[in-house]
Amino acid sequence: MEFDLIARIRRRAASVRGDVVLGIGDDAALLAMPAGRQLVVTMDALNAGVHFPAGTDPADVGWKALAVNLSDLAAMGARPAWCTLSLSLPNADDAWVEAFLDGFLALAARHDVALVGGDTTRGPLSACVTAHGLVETGRALRRDGARAGDDVWVTGTPGDAAGALAQWQAGGARDPALRARLDRPTPRIEAGLALAGIAHAAIDVSDGLLADLGHVCAASGVGAEVALDALPVSAALAAAFDADRRRVLQCAGGDDYELCFTAAGGRRDEVAAIAEACGVAMSRIGRIVDGGEVAALERDGRRWAPPRRGFEHFAG
Amino acid sequence: MEFDLIARIRRRAASVRGDVVLGIGDDAALLAMPAGRQLVVTMDALNAGVHFPAGTDPADVGWKALAVNLSDLAAMGARPAWCTLSLSLPNADDAWVEAFLDGFLALAARHDVALVGGDTTRGPLSACVTAHGLVETGRALRRDGARAGDDVWVTGTPGDAAGALAQWQAGGARDPALRARLDRPTPRIEAGLALAGIAHAAIDVSDGLLADLGHVCAASGVGAEVALDALPVSAALAAAFDADRRRVLQCAGGDDYELCFTAAGGRRDEVAAIAEACGVAMSRIGRIVDGGEVAALERDGRRWAPPRRGFEHFAG
Repeated sequence: MEFDLIARIRRRAASVRGDVVLGIGDDAALLAMPAGRQLVVTMDALNAGVHFPAGTDPADVGWKALAVNLSDLAAMGARPAWCTLSLSLPNADDAWVEAFLDGFLALAARHDVALVGGDTTRGPLSACVTAHGLVETGRALRRDGARAGDDVWVTGTPGDAAGALAQWQAGGARDPALRARLDRPTPRIEAGLALAGIAHAAIDVSDGLLADLGHVCAASGVGAEVALDALPVSAALAAAFDADRRRVLQCAGGDDYELCFTAAGGRRDEVAAIAEACGVAMSRIGRIVDGGEVAALERDGRRWAPPRRGFEHFAG
Repeated sequence: MEFDLIARIRRRAASVRGDVVLGIGDDAALLAMPAGRQLVVTMDALNAGVHFPAGTDPADVGWKALAVNLSDLAAMGARPAWCTLSLSLPNADDAWVEAFLDGFLALAARHDVALVGGDTTRGPLSACVTAHGLVETGRALRRDGARAGDDVWVTGTPGDAAGALAQWQAGGARDPALRARLDRPTPRIEAGLALAGIAHAAIDVSDGLLADLGHVCAASGVGAEVALDALPVSAALAAAFDADRRRVLQCAGGDDYELCFTAAGGRRDEVAAIAEACGVAMSRIGRIVDGGEVAALERDGRRWAPPRRGFEHFAG
């Protein structure tokens, strides 16, 4: 099985990046590094029945397998360059692989990412991706740079992916706009690139907004206050869920792949200009404070907390 | 599950490599690249029931998951630097993970490889690794440089891993020396480094000696003749299998992770000196010829071919 599949992938992955000295076809890929850049590396797997329902459109699985990795590069302010793919398949299903590659390579082409290696194995359906990006030395966005007094920002409208998941799990009406946010998240690459040098800290929202902001705070040794009323809500989410439910989805739902970042108060105009230039909404949702806690605040200042357990990945 | 496990892995993966600007704990790893080097990247997964029997010692699984990737770097003549690990586990078994890390990190330490990222997911037991190495620009060993007239060499004693697999599948006597070659292959890193600039082409023997030599020939547009009598045989393999069986194991058995390489005839003394310096046997087993075929030859010149199907990976 392996050779045919690899030949198939190799044919479709032909790249025009000049820095790919050797792509698929040798023992390893050989890549030319530009001067003055640091290498940024991330790796995430999607398993059938855990990260996506078994019947998901393979093109969506392909897109998302790359997207969740590119989102990590975006959160570092890196420019994507190369990726590798380890695809585990229960059987050699050519049509499934072609459709998977349709989604995977469509997103790769959008960001000029070359697929340069990996393997195919027999096993339960799973796609593991390693993505490589480049960042100007010293300019990477990190989790540990948030400072008391910083504004807290988020891109897009968090909660949409969790809303789609909740609808799917309930088996009821399904909003295609929400489902698209779950199946085809948009890695915020341009935003991450533009924010490098402006934001003090950044993370991508994969575990849930409050949890991920908590990771930033823990790494930076600070706390945060989030104004619940300031959370940007999509029309689709507002139409599908009442205010209480929505709040949980927005604060504790995962899989958004938006960026949450902090920046000094004096940078608000620059952030607004970046949002405009990138065509991505950026909403100021709170501020960094001393201490170590993330507090979500009602309009009247009362604290609110999501239910202890937010949202799980798809259960088998 | 994921956070506890990642914290556990992070504690154990603390690295002293000065080029790891950020390791585990941010959205992605941040790595400093030295000047004048190209990046070498490879990715391979091991799935339970396919690449190893379900009951295999987790320390051996950890060792081998990294070893098969380092072997690819060796075949490129690269010096290993960093790796990432995606570990899929059916449940959070701390003891299994600790033992897995024992094997994985023991091999990593031997070659000064830093574990800088990855993820843990719930799913069928599987370990996917991406390994990164560095090679002086233009010095990488490739598959496509073999030339008619070159000698064909192999390190170590091919067939041992396949011998262990055959014993395991037959359920009979098991030789621990052979089993060690299956469970804990030795990536030929020092040999690969020393051969860069001397060998014309190289590959690691994972699919079987003749098949892998065939990959070199296909990439180089040449053929090869292998003298069956010249194949180096370990004492353990000689003791456990008769000559006919042994020949099949040596020519078509996989999982050896030895290097097969070609070099000009004028380089024999240098290759012998490298073998001596690295403490690794290097045996001259044939030569590169015009054409496109790999021929295995008996002493009297008759051609021999292994059964159409050599050895499969472990079946579920």
